[in-house]
Amino acid sequence: MPIITLLTDFGLRDHFVGSVKGILLSLNPDATLVDITHLVPPQDVFTAAFLLHQAYACFPQGTIHFAVVDPGVGTARKPLAVTAGGHYFVAPDNGILTYILQEHEDFTAYEITADHYFRKPVSSTFHGRDIFAPVAAWISRRIELFQLGPVEPSPVRLQIPALKRLRESLIQGAILAVDHFGNLITNLKPEDLPMPFKILAGQREITGLRKTYAEGTPGEVIVVPGSTGFLEIAIKGASAAAALNMRAGSPIGVVLQ
Amino acid sequence: MPIITLLTDFGLRDHFVGSVKGILLSLNPDATLVDITHLVPPQDVFTAAFLLHQAYACFPQGTIHFAVVDPGVGTARKPLAVTAGGHYFVAPDNGILTYILQEHEDFTAYEITADHYFRKPVSSTFHGRDIFAPVAAWISRRIELFQLGPVEPSPVRLQIPALKRLRESLIQGAILAVDHFGNLITNLKPEDLPMPFKILAGQREITGLRKTYAEGTPGEVIVVPGSTGFLEIAIKGASAAAALNMRAGSPIGVVLQ
Amino acid sequence: MPIITLLTDFGLRDHFVGSVKGILLSLNPDATLVDITHLVPPQDVFTAAFLLHQAYACFPQGTIHFAVVDPGVGTARKPLAVTAGGHYFVAPDNGILTYILQEHEDFTAYEITADHYFRKPVSSTFHGRDIFAPVAAWISRRIELFQLGPVEPSPVRLQIPALKRLRESLIQGAILAVDHFGNLITNLKPEDLPMPFKILAGQREITGLRKTYAEGTPGEVIVVPGSTGFLEIAIKGASAAAALNMRAGSPIGVVLQ
Repeated sequence: MPIITLLTDFGLRDHFVGSVKGILLSLNPDATLVDITHLVPPQDVFTAAFLLHQAYACFPQGTIHFAVVDPGVGTARKPLAVTAGGHYFVAPDNGILTYILQEHEDFTAYEITADHYFRKPVSSTFHGRDIFAPVAAWISRRIELFQLGPVEPSPVRLQIPALKRLRESLIQGAILAVDHFGNLITNLKPEDLPMPFKILAGQREITGLRKTYAEGTPGEVIVVPGSTGFLEIAIKGASAAAALNMRAGSPIGVVLQ
Repeated sequence: MPIITLLTDFGLRDHFVGSVKGILLSLNPDATLVDITHLVPPQDVFTAAFLLHQAYACFPQGTIHFAVVDPGVGTARKPLAVTAGGHYFVAPDNGILTYILQEHEDFTAYEITADHYFRKPVSSTFHGRDIFAPVAAWISRRIELFQLGPVEPSPVRLQIPALKRLRESLIQGAILAVDHFGNLITNLKPEDLPMPFKILAGQREITGLRKTYAEGTPGEVIVVPGSTGFLEIAIKGASAAAALNMRAGSPIGVVLQ
Repeated sequence: MPIITLLTDFGLRDHFVGSVKGILLSLNPDATLVDITHLVPPQDVFTAAFLLHQAYACFPQGTIHFAVVDPGVGTARKPLAVTAGGHYFVAPDNGILTYILQEHEDFTAYEITADHYFRKPVSSTFHGRDIFAPVAAWISRRIELFQLGPVEPSPVRLQIPALKRLRESLIQGAILAVDHFGNLITNLKPEDLPMPFKILAGQREITGLRKTYAEGTPGEVIVVPGSTGFLEIAIKGASAAAALNMRAGSPIGVVLQ
């Protein structure tokens, strides 16, 4: 039974997700459908790219990932079908696959042009239902990606914040994402952090490296090696994002001592 | 594997949806369960009717739709099982099926009275779990609807806002629904719109008909042919509902020029 | 096909739930996954315990319940696998199983120590993905619980608010939970309520016992026998929690007359 995951900004209040799943199951009743999230902030391709990358590797090879955050729906932006790392991805060509492509530079991407696979008539506003869902379902029924259209050699990529050495003793980093608990996921990996260290974030100096969220004292801002491979800034039992007034994209500093 | 969709106002914070799914799978472990939404505003039968109609047709014939927004739970309102357009519907008789019945006037509706199908004891407050779920599961196991009770010839129907000609040059329409992005779904179809046109909505005059949400200029209020078959009022990258302070039921005007 | 339910405080905005499901399906593609809720208030083990108990009995025996609200993730708190009432539970040892253990005192609990079942490397912050998910999947593939580790004779239990007779004519109770509609679920059972009765709650005296939510008059605070077996305090078409400014843990009084 093929698995199809879904990651969108469609929200959970409307018929959008249900409609997409109806199309998927109409074309492949044997598919197992799994929601990653539908609460990506509307049109926030950057956050979508991060979440997709976090989740996809937990699924078995051969999984098809439907990733549709698509501010340009109906415009000239291309619909893509991509194979990378043994997984399949169906998504608009707007950077949502940035982390995936970076991790698997031997990917192959195809522009989806074979409109006989589409739901007709194709609306100009809901390609999730009319293009991406039927294509994902057909991939789950084992059509070959080259049947969908020509190779796209250079899919769009977002600029991912990199570590930058500002001075001899200062590195600039950034917040990549904020999770539901208010933990701030940085672009620092544990091996980037000198010991002793000082992280500057939202007017605070953080020096406490802990192993778990529960180890801090109340109100203390701590750094924890997160489950994503990146360091996270956290406060035990509270939201670091709220306390430090930071969000995805906010800069941080690392002082080398 | 039969498909059962679920559309409710149960929310996602409680055990309600889980309990219903437990009953469904207890009676039919082979059912494929698909959420349409559980975030219908509490007791808002009008919105539920719209969303159900939008989603159901994406599913294959034979699908069973569990649609329970039920302000009258435990009162004399009837539980219904309906076949229409090759689909099955299990719902309270309160108008939630209005659009479905209107589209398939050859429907057959049955009042559910055969209480040997119910979960016992039947609570007075959670018929979703105790009546509608077991009945949906039994339908998925292919009992015939007439086994459930007598024919109900006249299910309750809601008043759906119709276009009204107010003057020679002015038609009154209405907002049927607001989606997650803040797009306002009108009861106007593209063929209702004269060219050139002017739509009056929330103190604004709208004259721009675009093909996609992305075509507007920032802040511009535009009209887009939505994926539902109706015209939508939208603002690129923003919520038209918030900007125009409009909601489901709000009136609009169309000036014929 | 084994059923695995999921109840967490992971929220729906992140990759957490998707990652857990990926691990579950990687290890057992035949599992049927059912969400109970992922919107338990962050780290609120008390509410999680209540919701789990409400939902689990609707599922068939043999169901595996993944219940992870885990403020102590990464600390010395034990991971547990429990069999009780014919169901399986995988959860941190923090009281989340309190109601289940109380209902099935012949339970058997095991501390999960057999780390060859874990996802490696085990993070210190996401045991849902790295420990509980793979263990739940292996249980669904029918390993025996004793293979997971030693018996844990005394799992942690929360203090559940009990009825307390304060005076000859006054019993103190409490609110166990608040549902999505704002109904206040008390720890009173119908048989605890003398007739006539008077309930004191949030500066209000309530004397109206009704059978359904719809029977009250607008604004009237009523008592309804809820679907959970407990009495609920409700207001027709409105939120009793908001109107009375009460929440889980709030005390109530019952005056015997």
